[in-house]
Order: sequence, then C-alpha cells, then structure tokens
Amino acid sequence: MKTTVEETNARIEAAHRAFDQTRRASPQARSVWLGAIATALETHAEELVSLGQQETHLAEARLRSELKRAVFQLRLFIAEIASGENLDVTIDHLDAAWGAGPRPDIRRMNVPLGVVGVFGASNFPFAFSVMGGDSSSALAAGCSVIHKIHEGHLNLASRTGEIVITALQAAGAPDGLFSTITGRSAAEAMMDHPLVKAIGFTGSTSGGRALFDRAASRPEPIPFYGELGSINPVFVTERAWGLRRDEILSGFASSFTMGMGQFCTKPGLLFAPVRGSEEAEEVAAFLRGKLNDRESSPLLSPKLHEGFTKALAAVGSSDGVYKLVAGDDAEAPRPTILATSAPVIQQNPELLRSEMFGPATLLVQYEPGTKLEDLAALLEGQLTTTVHAEPDEDVTDLLAMLTKRSGRIIWNAWPTGVSVTYAQQHGGPYPATTSGTTSVGTASIGRFMRPVAYDSFPPSQLPDPLRDDNPWRIARRVNGTHEPAPKTGTRDAG
Amino acid sequence: MKTTVEETNARIEAAHRAFDQTRRASPQARSVWLGAIATALETHAEELVSLGQQETHLAEARLRSELKRAVFQLRLFIAEIASGENLDVTIDHLDAAWGAGPRPDIRRMNVPLGVVGVFGASNFPFAFSVMGGDSSSALAAGCSVIHKIHEGHLNLASRTGEIVITALQAAGAPDGLFSTITGRSAAEAMMDHPLVKAIGFTGSTSGGRALFDRAASRPEPIPFYGELGSINPVFVTERAWGLRRDEILSGFASSFTMGMGQFCTKPGLLFAPVRGSEEAEEVAAFLRGKLNDRESSPLLSPKLHEGFTKALAAVGSSDGVYKLVAGDDAEAPRPTILATSAPVIQQNPELLRSEMFGPATLLVQYEPGTKLEDLAALLEGQLTTTVHAEPDEDVTDLLAMLTKRSGRIIWNAWPTGVSVTYAQQHGGPYPATTSGTTSVGTASIGRFMRPVAYDSFPPSQLPDPLRDDNPWRIARRVNGTHEPAPKTGTRDAG
Repeated sequence: MKTTVEETNARIEAAHRAFDQTRRASPQARSVWLGAIATALETHAEELVSLGQQETHLAEARLRSELKRAVFQLRLFIAEIASGENLDVTIDHLDAAWGAGPRPDIRRMNVPLGVVGVFGASNFPFAFSVMGGDSSSALAAGCSVIHKIHEGHLNLASRTGEIVITALQAAGAPDGLFSTITGRSAAEAMMDHPLVKAIGFTGSTSGGRALFDRAASRPEPIPFYGELGSINPVFVTERAWGLRRDEILSGFASSFTMGMGQFCTKPGLLFAPVRGSEEAEEVAAFLRGKLNDRESSPLLSPKLHEGFTKALAAVGSSDGVYKLVAGDDAEAPRPTILATSAPVIQQNPELLRSEMFGPATLLVQYEPGTKLEDLAALLEGQLTTTVHAEPDEDVTDLLAMLTKRSGRIIWNAWPTGVSVTYAQQHGGPYPATTSGTTSVGTASIGRFMRPVAYDSFPPSQLPDPLRDDNPWRIARRVNGTHEPAPKTGTRDAG
Repeated sequence: MKTTVEETNARIEAAHRAFDQTRRASPQARSVWLGAIATALETHAEELVSLGQQETHLAEARLRSELKRAVFQLRLFIAEIASGENLDVTIDHLDAAWGAGPRPDIRRMNVPLGVVGVFGASNFPFAFSVMGGDSSSALAAGCSVIHKIHEGHLNLASRTGEIVITALQAAGAPDGLFSTITGRSAAEAMMDHPLVKAIGFTGSTSGGRALFDRAASRPEPIPFYGELGSINPVFVTERAWGLRRDEILSGFASSFTMGMGQFCTKPGLLFAPVRGSEEAEEVAAFLRGKLNDRESSPLLSPKLHEGFTKALAAVGSSDGVYKLVAGDDAEAPRPTILATSAPVIQQNPELLRSEMFGPATLLVQYEPGTKLEDLAALLEGQLTTTVHAEPDEDVTDLLAMLTKRSGRIIWNAWPTGVSVTYAQQHGGPYPATTSGTTSVGTASIGRFMRPVAYDSFPPSQLPDPLRDDNPWRIARRVNGTHEPAPKTGTRDAG
C-alpha cells in the first residue's frame, strides 16, 4: 500500500507538531526516547533478522551485526547529546574594549532544523534504513523524521517502523515524531513540503542527483545530504607490492566481495605495479584461489542485478580492458576482476568513474616510476581512498591529491567497514556526497542543526545551554577559550 | 576594463597552483600573509577612504570604521587559526573493544576547499568587499580567492585589490593566491570553473538566487554561501511599549536610517501596540522630530535608488497601508515610515516579504492581546529578529517562533551593527541566507573547509595537527573528550 499524498502531508504536519512540542526537550528526555527505540530493536531482533533474511539475501550473521550497529549508534548518540557537543555552545561576554567597536553579550548554540525526510538505502536494511544513521542522527539533533521506506525490504522496513513508533509512544514521545511513508508520490510530496527542512539520502548517483536538484529548486531550497557514488580506489606502491603482494591481494579479494560487493565503500579500483602478462597471470591465479573459497549469494534485488550486469559489461567491453578473473552472470554471480593499464585510463578516464555495484573490480597496472598522484588526479570525488605503502616512503604528493579527492584516506587497510565513532568521516567531494558532511559517526548529528545567536539577552530569557550557571553541565567555548564540562560534585549528584 | 574569460581562467588556474603550494602551510606562515594585508590596508587608509567617499556617498567616519573593522577581522582570524579551532581536530585511538566492532585509529581534521569565488557587496565597500568577511575567512581557511569586484565602487575595489596583491607578494605568498576580476562574463566563468569549489556572495535575493541555482546545477555542484534578503522585524510587547515607548522609537529611528537604510540588518518592520489613529499621530510626530535631525545622503548608486523607490511605491500603494511619516524621492531621500495593521498583513503576508533597501520601514499596529507568535509565523527566514520586552515577561512562544525564523535574536537592542566575534551568527533561514552558516565572525572560516579522516595512519605519515605530540599545540577532541591546548613551557618557548 503506497502512502497517498494526503497521508504524507498529514504525517509531515504531525511531525511538525511533535517538533514544536519537543524542541526544548532536554537531552535526557530525548535520550529516553532514543533508548526506548534501541531496546525495542534488540527485543525484536529475532523477528527483524528473520524478515531481513527473507527479503535481502543477506546472511543472518551480517544482519545481526548490522542491527547491533544500529542499536550501538543510538546509544552513542545518547551519550553525545548528553555531552552537548552537538550544540557547539559559544559565549562572548560583553566587551566594551573589543576590537573594532564594543561587543555585546552574544551566545550561540545549534538548534534542530525541524522535520527531516530520510530515504532508506537498499544495501543496509538496518544501518542505513528505517533507524539507520540519518534517522538516528536527525532524532538526536532534535528533529522529527519522515522515513521513506526502500521497497527492496518493504516488510522489514514496515515492521521496523511499527516497532519504532510503538516504542516511542510507550516512552511518552509526542505522536508523529517519527513515521514512515512508501511510494514515489509520497516521496515527492515529502521533498516539496514547506515544513520539511532537510533530506538524508543514500543511493545511486542518478537518483540522488535528481533529488538534490529537486531540493535545490524548491522555493525555499533545503540541504540535501546525499551519499551517491564512490569507486574507492586503492593505490599500492612499488615497495609495498614487492614486500607484501599476496597479503594485499588477499585483503583486496575479501574487501571487494564483502556483502556481494554492494557496499558504498567497496574498493572498485586497484592501482598496482603488475609487471607484464606473466605477473598478471600469477596475480589472477592467486586471486582465483582466494575467490573460490567465497560463497556467492544473489544480489539484493533483480533490479540491482540488472544494473550490475550492465555496468560490468560496459566497463568490460571498453578498449584495453580484459577479464583477469572471469565471474559469471548466475543468480548468485561469482566475482569478476577486470584489468587494464595506466595509459588506457589516461586515455579514457571515464573508466574510473563507472561504479559497478556488485562483486566486480578493476585492476589498473602501472609501470615502475609512474607518479601515482597523476593517476589519482583523474579521479572524481570519493568516500574513501586507500594507500598501501611503507611507513617511511615519501607519498606526500599522492596523499595531497587524495586529500583533495576523498573524505577518508586509509593506510594499509581496507575501506569496507565504517565504524561509528567521533572522528569518522563518511562523505567526500561530489559525487561521493552532495555536501562535505559525514553520515556516519557523532558528527552526523550536526547536519540537522543550524546556529542561532542570542544577542544581549537577560539571563532569565536565555535557553538553558547558554546560561552562565551551565545547568546542562556541558563543555562550552567562552570568550574564545574552551571550558571543559564542569565535574558533577557529590552534592549535585545526590 | 572587464576581465575576459581567458584572463579569468588563467587567474583561477594560478589560484589553484597557489592553493597547491600553500595547502600544507602552517597557520604561522598564513598569518604572515594575512598580517601583511592588514598592515597594508592600514598604511593606505587615507587613500582608500578618500576613494570610497568619491564612489559611495558614504561618510568618511563610516568608511574609516568599516576599514578598521576589516583590519580587525584579519587579525582576529590570525589568532583563530593559530588556535586551530577551525580544524576541529578529532582523534579516536584504536579500540578493539569499541561498541559494534573494533575501532581503528581514526583522526579527522578540516582541510581547505580550494579556490573560492567571492562577490563584493555594494553596501559595505570594505567589510563585505575585496578584503571583507568572505575573502578574509577563505584565506584564513587556507583557500585561495578570486574576488569579483562590485562595480558600484570599481576604483576603490581595484585599488584595494592592488594593495592586497602587492602586500601578499612582499610577504612571500605564492603568486595568484588572491586576485580580482570584473564584469559579468568573468563572473559567470568563475561560477562555472571546475577548479572553483565554493562561492561567497552578499546581495539581492533575485541576483543571489540566480547564482545559487547556477552553483547547484553545475556538473559538480558547489556550496554557495549567499546572503540575500532580510527584513529584520522588531516586536515590541505591550509592557515594553507602555514603559519605554519613546526610547524604543528613538532607537528605531536611528537604526532603520543608519547607512541610509542600506544595511542587510536594517529593521524593516516594527510590530507595536499602537492604539488607534490618535496614538499613531503621536508616534508620527515623535518620529518626525527624531528623523528631522538626521542628515540624508544619496543612496549608494542610481540603480539602488531606483530599486528602493519602486519597492517603496509597491508597499506604499498596497491596500491598508498608509504613510505615517512621509519621506521624499529626492536625490538624498528623506526617511519614510509606512504603517498598517495586523489584520492587513494577515490578509496579505507578502507585505512582510518586500525588502525596501533604503531609508524606509513599515510599522504594523497590533491590538492588545494579539499573540505575537502568530504574526511572527507569517515571516520568511531572517538574518535577525528583535524583541523589546521586559526581562520577566513570558515571551516563550514568541522566542520559539523567532528561533525558527532567524539566525540572531536581539533583546532590547537593535540589529544594525554586527560585531566580529566568536559567537556571532550572521545567517538565517532562506531567503536570509542560502545556508545555515555565518558570514561574520570566526565561525565563518569553517565554511571554506571540509573534514577529512585519516584511518590507520602511521605516525610518520600523519598531518601535523593530528600527530600525538601535537606540534601545533592546539585544542583537540581525543576519544570523545576535549583536551585543551597544551601550555607552552619555558623550554619550548625559548
């Protein structure tokens, strides 16, 4: 059953009323709601994992760990908003002798944006879906959420939505704080509704760009936090290749096939100094051995399978590209490794820009002495780039170029697996994402907030986080200097 | 002489080379360059102020204080980047027992975006022009800058540009770090160039929206930090009006006519509980007295004069709007105060959305008992909103609505005058600005940066700000906890 436009509008209005009722809620109140969601997801883990298995072809262990991640994320965000980090409180006291003229008392903090629309992703039915990163961070920020269900896991998403809504009601959250919608017209109504103030999205470059354009062309444009496409290239230096070729190839085989290659951080390119066809055949034989051990499963959906087959055929049939390790087009496709050489991609850099969303990757052989930064310069924006090198090598120019091209740079490890932490950055230059922000980790909360300054306010009228007595006991920047969160004394804690 | 497209492209390419050469420069190196600009502006103050007087009709004192502000801003930014605040360094150590799976060592910092295009504003020939907030913050961030000169003060801007470029050269900055362009085709070439990674703009809603759309529709969309239109409404409660009517009206008269009403923070709306036509006449008489004292000058340009006259005529001829204090359409126009009542604007909220860029404002009379939040709900996004009320009044609902509608809320003071501080917020919901960021104050630097995470890096390959020994001695967040900047011991300082 698709949600009608009328139903969508009603849910957005309810979400806005819930936002109004909760915008001044303390982090503690909000934490009760987020905690109730986390507990409910844990309580229903068996049911949800089983629904996920039926709909997604993902293995039970993967689904369990993904659900665990979503629950962990909610609890990390509870701690984060209690710390007040997301508020970025900055206080300037009145200063008659300040610089270019007297400075009034100004106090700034972040406030939530309002109703946020979130699109579920196909490939992470828990971590980037109903109660994935975008929904969790928007709720933690103090926003209310309308979640557009991904139809690749409709039953799982609908059931997750019910569980979340029931948990919120039982925890005393206002009606409408979170709801779900299905279908394209509902999604369009959400994109266009004046009460919707931001969008979170994870999906394809073409679909994401269309939605970005729609968000930008509204009478009131709104931020569109879209994660679109990324090839996640890996660069192996000559020294690293000489010292640890097999180890690198093992890690590569395992990383690019993880989740059947349906990860936004799948390494879809490997730049390696493979010498001639003889070494290429050794590499192929080694990789075949590694890949034969791996079980295959069908891709997430027939539509994704079709898209994967098409992209693979397009890259595979390009001039100068050959099949190093042949996969197949079975229902559960075996992994494919295409190969080419640096001069070919210099002629046709489009080869570096074609995401093959599934178990396939492209090996680019380069000649000794090639400047890797020149190859990196051909890349579009990436979520991640990876370097395999020795700690004492001078890769300054390569790293400088990768800094321009990516949001996260990985050293001697693999891009798949994005842990939820304070310093995590999951977002890079376009088309990796449509903004420089991260959709994973505690910094993702700030996307759904904006700063407001209170100028010359009397103490009695200031929001709590800005009061001199700091009742929320949070770290703040005062007159330019960071002041740590005050320790809770025994008296206060009693 | 307009800059040709070829010249523009060459300057952008030079700016990009300069960016590449300086992206790893220390804050100290950058400070030498920013400091050289500040000193050069001070050295040439007489010449610049005199050029400004010839071109803008602004008074000498105003121009002097604006130049002083631009210089102060550069020096505040020098201190800010030395503190490392703009880098937002966040370090997570390896943690095998972390939450949903082991956490690698991840270290995140902000890096500069690249070449930034900046449009000069007509109304602040120093503070929002060649070396105004956008240029200064972009350079402080580590970007290079192409500045599109505003033709309203072409000679002043060209001369300022020369002074800046000469100062940078003498201070050893790389060629092309800063340059200027003139003319529409040059501006369009800048908007579209793939090496340009962000735009700063201050100007009209129509012009700004066209540029925003252009930035969003590029193959690689880029952030457009535009400050467009704001009416800056002021709400006076019944109690404040009863206690301090004359004081409020005096402040209002002085604020809305400051700079001939050509401030982006001019209070263009006053909601006051004026009782009937008798009190309206008292108010008019009082305001006339205040306004008669003020000297008038021509507006910044004939084009602005024409736009002002048109906007004033459109609002003034609307149903239910009358002239409370009549101005005129002389070359140096006398201030005009239009008046209407709350029911009229409730019928026609467009009246609240028409910026009259010049010495005019609209008084909205409301009846006792009117809920001010209901009137505030009719507003579009604003740079500022202002409340005149008593400290013990309950204005919770009004403040909640103003928080939704504006970037800075002022209590018993006036919005004109935006001091350059840590907590300042000059930016609000659309159409006030096109992003939630601020274009004034130290937080403006972050607009021209984006986060990059370094995952599992060996110490020898980490950028300096992320190293364990913290060679830049900056405050950082480590494993979720803020660590203050290490104190410099006597040995290190020697």
